[in-house]
Amino acid sequence: MRKGVIRPGHVEIRVLDIDEAVKHYVDLMGLIEMDRDDKGRVYLKAWTEVDKFSVVLREADEPGMDFMGFKCVSEEVVDQLRDQLLDFGLQVEDIPAGELKDCGRRVRFRAPTGHFFELFATKKQTGKWEIGNRNPEAWPRGLVGMAASRFDHCLLYGPNLSETLKLFREVLGFDLAEQVLAADGTRVAQFLTLSMKAHDVAFIHCDEPGKFHHASFFLETWHDVLKAADLLSMTDTSIDIGPTRHGLTHGQTIYFFDPSGNRNEVFAGGDYHYPDHPPVTWDAEELGKAIFYHDRVLNERFLTVLT
Amino acid sequence: MRKGVIRPGHVEIRVLDIDEAVKHYVDLMGLIEMDRDDKGRVYLKAWTEVDKFSVVLREADEPGMDFMGFKCVSEEVVDQLRDQLLDFGLQVEDIPAGELKDCGRRVRFRAPTGHFFELFATKKQTGKWEIGNRNPEAWPRGLVGMAASRFDHCLLYGPNLSETLKLFREVLGFDLAEQVLAADGTRVAQFLTLSMKAHDVAFIHCDEPGKFHHASFFLETWHDVLKAADLLSMTDTSIDIGPTRHGLTHGQTIYFFDPSGNRNEVFAGGDYHYPDHPPVTWDAEELGKAIFYHDRVLNERFLTVLT
Amino acid sequence: MRKGVIRPGHVEIRVLDIDEAVKHYVDLMGLIEMDRDDKGRVYLKAWTEVDKFSVVLREADEPGMDFMGFKCVSEEVVDQLRDQLLDFGLQVEDIPAGELKDCGRRVRFRAPTGHFFELFATKKQTGKWEIGNRNPEAWPRGLVGMAASRFDHCLLYGPNLSETLKLFREVLGFDLAEQVLAADGTRVAQFLTLSMKAHDVAFIHCDEPGKFHHASFFLETWHDVLKAADLLSMTDTSIDIGPTRHGLTHGQTIYFFDPSGNRNEVFAGGDYHYPDHPPVTWDAEELGKAIFYHDRVLNERFLTVLT
Amino acid sequence: MRKGVIRPGHVEIRVLDIDEAVKHYVDLMGLIEMDRDDKGRVYLKAWTEVDKFSVVLREADEPGMDFMGFKCVSEEVVDQLRDQLLDFGLQVEDIPAGELKDCGRRVRFRAPTGHFFELFATKKQTGKWEIGNRNPEAWPRGLVGMAASRFDHCLLYGPNLSETLKLFREVLGFDLAEQVLAADGTRVAQFLTLSMKAHDVAFIHCDEPGKFHHASFFLETWHDVLKAADLLSMTDTSIDIGPTRHGLTHGQTIYFFDPSGNRNEVFAGGDYHYPDHPPVTWDAEELGKAIFYHDRVLNERFLTVLT
Repeated sequence: MRKGVIRPGHVEIRVLDIDEAVKHYVDLMGLIEMDRDDKGRVYLKAWTEVDKFSVVLREADEPGMDFMGFKCVSEEVVDQLRDQLLDFGLQVEDIPAGELKDCGRRVRFRAPTGHFFELFATKKQTGKWEIGNRNPEAWPRGLVGMAASRFDHCLLYGPNLSETLKLFREVLGFDLAEQVLAADGTRVAQFLTLSMKAHDVAFIHCDEPGKFHHASFFLETWHDVLKAADLLSMTDTSIDIGPTRHGLTHGQTIYFFDPSGNRNEVFAGGDYHYPDHPPVTWDAEELGKAIFYHDRVLNERFLTVLT
Repeated sequence: MRKGVIRPGHVEIRVLDIDEAVKHYVDLMGLIEMDRDDKGRVYLKAWTEVDKFSVVLREADEPGMDFMGFKCVSEEVVDQLRDQLLDFGLQVEDIPAGELKDCGRRVRFRAPTGHFFELFATKKQTGKWEIGNRNPEAWPRGLVGMAASRFDHCLLYGPNLSETLKLFREVLGFDLAEQVLAADGTRVAQFLTLSMKAHDVAFIHCDEPGKFHHASFFLETWHDVLKAADLLSMTDTSIDIGPTRHGLTHGQTIYFFDPSGNRNEVFAGGDYHYPDHPPVTWDAEELGKAIFYHDRVLNERFLTVLT
Repeated sequence: MRKGVIRPGHVEIRVLDIDEAVKHYVDLMGLIEMDRDDKGRVYLKAWTEVDKFSVVLREADEPGMDFMGFKCVSEEVVDQLRDQLLDFGLQVEDIPAGELKDCGRRVRFRAPTGHFFELFATKKQTGKWEIGNRNPEAWPRGLVGMAASRFDHCLLYGPNLSETLKLFREVLGFDLAEQVLAADGTRVAQFLTLSMKAHDVAFIHCDEPGKFHHASFFLETWHDVLKAADLLSMTDTSIDIGPTRHGLTHGQTIYFFDPSGNRNEVFAGGDYHYPDHPPVTWDAEELGKAIFYHDRVLNERFLTVLT
Repeated sequence: MRKGVIRPGHVEIRVLDIDEAVKHYVDLMGLIEMDRDDKGRVYLKAWTEVDKFSVVLREADEPGMDFMGFKCVSEEVVDQLRDQLLDFGLQVEDIPAGELKDCGRRVRFRAPTGHFFELFATKKQTGKWEIGNRNPEAWPRGLVGMAASRFDHCLLYGPNLSETLKLFREVLGFDLAEQVLAADGTRVAQFLTLSMKAHDVAFIHCDEPGKFHHASFFLETWHDVLKAADLLSMTDTSIDIGPTRHGLTHGQTIYFFDPSGNRNEVFAGGDYHYPDHPPVTWDAEELGKAIFYHDRVLNERFLTVLT
């Protein structure tokens, strides 16, 4: 948080059918529908989140990620970082307050990987869902499905990892928590964090820009990963891989697909990072183990099925 | 336990290199070496078992299972069942006390699937390892690796499932807990139990007789299944599949291979059975989900890699 | 199961207010209401149970246990055991089929501890709740609260433990799994089982006959014990002790009270028993650790608050 | 981390017998002995920590905490904060590099609660124990006992909570994550954090200055809390309370005492904090539930047994 960027604040995901998508993200994953807007977008949050929403679903002809937004500590920080993005050579787009309901103005830019990101500082706070912050119970009783507890990070595929690393570290104040390097030093993957989490956003090299690998949500325990896996079978939801552990971050995970073909992850555990920690490095020849710690081989889907 | 057969008492497994095998079953799986005999066989037990041993490793040119032994409540029961095996049309072999160290006489027979089984009633009891039965602590502190808590069951492949079912139910007093049936009623798989466990022995149809699919050991929790999976990666042990859940029995499982190519399972949880429960039936077209509840497809290895 | 008695089949509990009791056992503990009868009794089951019901709530002026019933494999076994109960010197009461809805005739007797028990062989089977036995999912999605998975056992307080032990072993075919003995050999506690469970019924010595300590329900994991404890706080339910582990059986447990003052337990884990296992013995001077393994002291409530 | 203070870096604990203390912190809690110095102090770390040590044991006539040290991102930050501490009206003591082995210079000050704290920026890094940061395995195989994964925080008792809050927020850049307030607004407890953790240091009001309530260490799961509780019983270690959950932070916890009477905690889980989160507030009348979420009452020891 060196530069005042706090955390991933939201992600807007394109879905082919909004009703099916709501069913998936709400009934199965346990997110909570908080609002809809006049563009038909649906606003969701996970129960531990204090802000009003973290996931926006938009019906579109193609699946994928529209943008990922990072929350900053103040509007002043947004202004400073806007200037620094321009200095870095990027174009910025100013999106007025209210374009996302109950969210302040956002500054949007496109990273060298081809993905759109936003900075914002203001969003309505509704508190932890049904818990609040006065004598709070341990958890709310009305959760359903996987009961995902927070939107955690996105993994994105695209080119220009080195320049993107420079942007996220120098302009936005991310730390490099983990990376995969080829023998010649080429960057294969980089996991970036703003605080103690193993990653707030991650990138894997891919020649095609702007591809979306997955949006990830946090569960409390490995036991919850099992229940999530069970729910995928009970609902005939398409599974990618898991339950398993990652080598990178050592999180306990399962991957699956929403009805539009966007990949989701729910995971538990994972290493923590502090700014004085040197980055953890995986050698590209260990990529299989780095991604899927138990199987120690990649499946083809992991590298090629993107939205 | 209608006929006085209590539980799986031991399994003798053929291994290509006894030292590598001991390293695998003791250091990795956490069994305890209890003794060796003048034939070079190594006797192991899991820590919760009261009898002196449950696994016997024998060095041989080919991997596989020599035999599986069931413990009976008394020598009288062994005598009665010996007669009933003969009446059923099987041949029996009488193996004198002491052939397995600290084990009484055994009555051996070959099931219609081609596997050798034994009945015995007498084995030296050494008590729960380092716990005993007076003011016992919850668990012993010296366990290593997966800390498998008991030898649980074997899954065997062979022909003649119907006749084998008749033998195990009518002569030996097993219950049919679960089964997989083809649309025409053909038996694909059958899981047989002597008490509350989901299975004490299981069979899957295969034209070749006497094939060994795996020996299975019990862990206490899904958390322990994760740690077991981690240990497989740390030790570069060949994994088959998992962590996952079975549909049949709903146990939480991981499969892997010993250095000789014999498949092992460690698992936790699983349904319970009582004699008044009708058998759980899976349709053969659901076989993928029945075996691997999350992936919902079989891998080729599950059906073809046998010892 | 030496004599054909399978398991605890039901318990009838007296409650002061039937509506409050239903709220407790259904909304909080997660049992399922299956039926009511013209006496106002409410029939409940836990989701893994195959029979139609296992808990009967009866509104009365005083809390406590009316009776506990054990299911037998056949009506013939009920007849045989009826004769043997008479031979043992007990009186039996024949209760006609239908007195409990969808339950066959029952043979009732009073144990030397002053408690009423019943034997029966026939009860309507409705299968695992919302799961059934054809291609069954891992668990049903509609469970609430603690989602208790089965009625497991009762702990009862009364005199004449030695004679009661004789009755349960010799007439009913229970095994003695664990016991607490005073230095002079006096029986302080005895845990009796019909199969692999650490106990199907347990007794602790108390001069007053027929006292009810608790009815216990099974949870799948230690994680579920935590969630159960959380729910007790969220609902302001009176807690007795826990989460903790027992020394006896090593189960992971929490005790609490229903609105009528009857104690309940939910627990996970626990040792298994086989008929060839010598009983586990705790010395009375270790009673604190035997009951509450972590605290290693009894609280006064455990010994004196009974219904 | 607004001001460049990263995390709790170390705590020096006074113990009555160094050998007994090492046995407790190493054999039972699973910390790793890293070094000793010519004053007889013993340096320990937990396995996930990258720095060389986090706990220093010093033999003395009275138990308690000598000081707690916070690591800063740079020596420049230490210099800046030194100035600001002086501006705040505190005295500072400059302790030269090497006074703690392999640790740079430290700036020590006494908080209004009477406790000594230190700031430092330099300490030898030895990496995660037996894991390192290149293709790291999930965990090291040689851990023993509770296998505590990191030194997490201290809870301290003393007066002047308001002034201490001002010091930690304004000078040191901590956030107020949680607090307990009396009806008249008097501060009863405050939990302060530098990043996402629910607390890096916590204070409870007490008239006597400089008292030590406990040092806390992180475990990965509630399952590990159970194993920790079991180990306390197996080693006859004095337990305070648990396993249970806190209301404050909702962490899953157990408290116990080292051989010198210093209280330790091991815990898992717990809420996360971000700088834009309003503090969670517990009312003093809910203090019992705030501290022990399940029991909902304080035990006397919690408030009075301090070192």
